[in-house]
Amino acid sequence: MGAFEELRDRLGEIYDLSRAAALLAWDERTMMPAAGAEARAETQATLAKVRHEMFTDGEIGGLIDQVRSAPGGDAAPGESLAADLARVVARDWEKARRVPSELRAELARASSIAENVWVEAKKRSDFGMLLPHLERNVELTLRYADCFEGFPGFAHAYDPLLDEYEPEMTTEQIRTLLVALREGLVPLVREATENGGGPSEDPFRGDFPAEAQAALLKELVSELPFPEGSWRLDPTAHPFATSVGRGDVRLTTRYDESNLAISLFSAMHEAGHGLYESGVDPELRRTPLAKPRSLGLHESQSRLWENWVARSRPYLERLLPRLRERFPGAFEEVDSGELEQAANRIERSLIRIEADEVTYNLHILIRFELELEIFEGGLNLTKLPEAWNERYRAYLGLEVPDDAHGVLQDVHWAGGAFGYFPTYSLGNVIAGQLWAAAGADLGARLADGDLASLGDWLRDRVHRHGRRLSPAEILEGAGCDELSVDPLLQHLRGRVALAV
Amino acid sequence: MGAFEELRDRLGEIYDLSRAAALLAWDERTMMPAAGAEARAETQATLAKVRHEMFTDGEIGGLIDQVRSAPGGDAAPGESLAADLARVVARDWEKARRVPSELRAELARASSIAENVWVEAKKRSDFGMLLPHLERNVELTLRYADCFEGFPGFAHAYDPLLDEYEPEMTTEQIRTLLVALREGLVPLVREATENGGGPSEDPFRGDFPAEAQAALLKELVSELPFPEGSWRLDPTAHPFATSVGRGDVRLTTRYDESNLAISLFSAMHEAGHGLYESGVDPELRRTPLAKPRSLGLHESQSRLWENWVARSRPYLERLLPRLRERFPGAFEEVDSGELEQAANRIERSLIRIEADEVTYNLHILIRFELELEIFEGGLNLTKLPEAWNERYRAYLGLEVPDDAHGVLQDVHWAGGAFGYFPTYSLGNVIAGQLWAAAGADLGARLADGDLASLGDWLRDRVHRHGRRLSPAEILEGAGCDELSVDPLLQHLRGRVALAV
Repeated sequence: MGAFEELRDRLGEIYDLSRAAALLAWDERTMMPAAGAEARAETQATLAKVRHEMFTDGEIGGLIDQVRSAPGGDAAPGESLAADLARVVARDWEKARRVPSELRAELARASSIAENVWVEAKKRSDFGMLLPHLERNVELTLRYADCFEGFPGFAHAYDPLLDEYEPEMTTEQIRTLLVALREGLVPLVREATENGGGPSEDPFRGDFPAEAQAALLKELVSELPFPEGSWRLDPTAHPFATSVGRGDVRLTTRYDESNLAISLFSAMHEAGHGLYESGVDPELRRTPLAKPRSLGLHESQSRLWENWVARSRPYLERLLPRLRERFPGAFEEVDSGELEQAANRIERSLIRIEADEVTYNLHILIRFELELEIFEGGLNLTKLPEAWNERYRAYLGLEVPDDAHGVLQDVHWAGGAFGYFPTYSLGNVIAGQLWAAAGADLGARLADGDLASLGDWLRDRVHRHGRRLSPAEILEGAGCDELSVDPLLQHLRGRVALAV
Repeated sequence: MGAFEELRDRLGEIYDLSRAAALLAWDERTMMPAAGAEARAETQATLAKVRHEMFTDGEIGGLIDQVRSAPGGDAAPGESLAADLARVVARDWEKARRVPSELRAELARASSIAENVWVEAKKRSDFGMLLPHLERNVELTLRYADCFEGFPGFAHAYDPLLDEYEPEMTTEQIRTLLVALREGLVPLVREATENGGGPSEDPFRGDFPAEAQAALLKELVSELPFPEGSWRLDPTAHPFATSVGRGDVRLTTRYDESNLAISLFSAMHEAGHGLYESGVDPELRRTPLAKPRSLGLHESQSRLWENWVARSRPYLERLLPRLRERFPGAFEEVDSGELEQAANRIERSLIRIEADEVTYNLHILIRFELELEIFEGGLNLTKLPEAWNERYRAYLGLEVPDDAHGVLQDVHWAGGAFGYFPTYSLGNVIAGQLWAAAGADLGARLADGDLASLGDWLRDRVHRHGRRLSPAEILEGAGCDELSVDPLLQHLRGRVALAV
C-alpha cells in the first residue's frame, strides 16, 4: 500500500468517527431523552479525544510529507486527489498540533460551563452572572491565538479565530467587506423602515397545526434537488442541518403554530445547507475533503435557498395554492404579490435570529466590530453591554431595554465561538454573487424558478469541490469576481422596493 | 493514577465508543434515510475496529494483571469493584485476543453478505440460494471455535459459540435443561391445542390506528418503573431495545393496524429489556460491567414483563377500560376474563416470532437441536431443511409447506449467530424462576400487579449487578435454586388451563 492509500485509509477512519459524532450531536438535539445528557457529553468527549489522538499522530505527518514529495504531489488544486488531500490535510494537521491537548480540553470545559451559565443569565437578564465566564473564554481564546505565532498567513490576533470557521480569510479582508456592507446597509434600512417596511397584515400569522406544517415541508423539501431517500426532517428547538454520512442528511426545523414563516423559511435554509453537504463529489467520500469548504460558503447555500429562492415571486406563486389547500381559509384573501410582500417585510428589531434579510447583516456587523474591539482593542468586557447598546442605537436606531434582548441573546460567545459571526454576513455576500453568476449562466431558467437547474449549477460550481479548492478558487470557478457586496446590496434594494 | 484508575479510564473510553455504536445501530433501524446505509456500515466497521484495537492492546492486559495482583485484587465477586472489573475483563480480553483480526473481519464480511442473500432467498423460498453462504458461515464459525482450544471451561465445539451470548454456560447444561423442557412441553402443547387453544374471537384484531396505539403505549411505558425522562419509543420493522448511555434507553415496537397485540406485547417485551439496561448500579457507569450479564438473563426480563405481567389478569383488568377509551367500540363486548383468554391463546404455528408463550420454546428447541447436529454431529447442511421439517412434524405436528415458512424464517444463521437461539428459552426458564422468587418475597403485592414493587425487586436482585456477578450468582442472590424448568412449566400449565 502506498503512502497516499495509507493516508486515505487512516483519514477515512477519523472521518468515520467524526460522522458518528455528527449523528450523536443530531440525536442530542432531536431525539435524546433528557436524562441521557451526561452520558452523551462523555461519549462525545471520548470521540473527540480519540479522533484528535489519531489525527495528530506523527505518522500522519510523515505520510503527508511522503505524498507531497512524491511525483505529482505538488499538482495545482483540483488536478490530483492525492495532492489536494495532502495539501489541505497538511494545514489541518499543522494547526491541530499547535494547540496543546490541555488547552483544548480547558477550552471545551470552560465553554461548556459558560453555556450552561448563559442559559440562566439570559433568563434573568443578568450580564454580571456571565461576565467571569466570558472573561475566562476570552483569556483562553487569546492563549489559543498565541499558539499560532508565525503561522503562515496569520497577521492579526483575530486571524486564527476567523480561520477556524473561514479558513484562509484574513481579518483585514473581512473587515473591508463588512465596512462596505455597513455603508450600503445603514441608509437602506433607514429608507425601508421609514416607509413602514411592508404590509401590516401578515398572512403567515394565524393558526397552523404542526402536523400540517410538517406535511407541507416534507413535500417542499422532496421537490428540492436531493438524491432520493437521502434526507429526513425533524423538529428541534434551534434548527440546524448536518450530514452523518454520504446519502444521509438530517434537516431540522421549528414549528410555531402561530407563525408559519418560522418553519417554512428555516426548513428551506437548512435544506440549503443539506444540499451543499450532499453535493460533494463521491470521489471525496470518507476523506477530510468531503465537507463544505467554509462556513461562509455553507451559509451562502442556506441563504440562497431561504432568501433568493423561497422568498422569490415565482416560488411563492407556486406555493400559494398549496398553502390554501393545506390550511383551509388562511390564504384565501391573499394574492401572490401580497404573499411576496409579507415574506419580505422589513423591520428594525433587537433579536438577530428574528431579523429580516435587510436588517440581518447589521446585527452581524455589531457583533463582528465588538469581537475586534475585544481581541484588537482590548475592550474591557465589563463595558460590553454598553458598547452593544450604543451600536444598536447607531446602526438600527433602537434602544436595548435589557441584556436578554441585547448582549445575552446569542450563545456563541458563551460557547467560546469568537470569529463565527462574520461568516453569516459573508454567506449573504457570497449568495448574492453566486445568484448573479447563476443568473448569467441559466438566464430564464433561474428567473422562472427552475430549482433542478439551480441545483445542478450549484453542485457543479460549488458543492462537488468539497474542500479541494479554496473559497476564492471556488468562487472564481463559478464565474464570480473578487468578493463584493454589490450583488447583495442590489438584491436587498429589490426587497426595499417591495416594501415602500 | 493507580492501575485500577488507568484501567477504568481506558475501558471507559472503549465503553463510550460502544455506546456510540449502539446509537448508530438504533438510528439505522428507526431513523436513517435509506441512502445512508453504505456510509453507516463503514462508520460501524471503523468503530468496531478502533474499539477492538484499543481493547486488545497489551497494556490493557498489563493493567488487568496489576489490579489482580494488588491487595484485594482477588476479592470474592461483588465485594470490590476493582477485583470484579479485572476478573470480568480478564476473560473478555483473553477471548478477544484469541481471535485473529482477519478471521473476525471475514466473519463480519461473510455474515453481512449472507444476510443480504437471505432476504432474497426467503422471498423466493429458495434454500439452495442461501446454502453456500451458510456453509461458509459454519466453516468460519468452526474456525472461530478452534481459536478457543484449551480455553478454561470449554469442552465442546459449541461451548465457545454459546459463550458469546451466554457466558459461562456449557453446552451440557443447556442441553439438559432444554431436554427437560421438551419433555414437559410436548404433551402440554398437545393438551392445549387438542382442546382448541382458546376463544376463536380475538378482540385484539380489528382496526387500530397506529397513532392511537402509540399514544396508548407511551402511557403504558410511562407507568413502568423507568427513571423519568430516560426512554423513548419508536416504530421499527423488527422491534428491539438498546441503551445508548446511562439515562437513555431506546425502545421500539411495530404497529400492525389490524392487530393491537403485536405492538402491545412487543412494547412490554422491549420495555423489560430496557428496564434491565437502566437498572444497572450507577457505580458501574462507563465500565464493561455496566451491561446486563447474559442474553438469557436479558430475555428473562423481557419475557417477565411481556408474559408474566402484561398477559396477567390484574394487568389486563386495568388495561381494559383504557382500551375502551382509546379505541371506541372495539372492546365493548369483552370482559377481562375474555381479554385474558385472548391474550393467552395457544396455537401450533410455523413461525417462531408469531408463536404463543406455550408453543414458543418448541421452536427454540428445534433450532438448538439442529445447531448441535451441525457442530457436534456434522450434519450436512444440504439436509437441513429436511431435518427442520421432520422436527416440526414430531414436536408440533405440523407440515412445513416451504422453506420460507421453515428453515429460512430466521436471520440468525445467515447472520452467523450460532449459539444465540437457546438463550431465548433460557430466558423463559429464568423468568419462571424469578417470578416465583419475587412472589415468595412480595406476596400479594405481586399478585395484585404492583409494578413498582416488582421493579424495585428486580433492580435490587438482578439489574444492579450488571456483569459483576455470574448468572448463577445473580440467581442465587435472588433466591432461586439451581436452574429448573419446573416454575416455567407450572406457569404454562396455568395458560393451558385458561385455554381448555
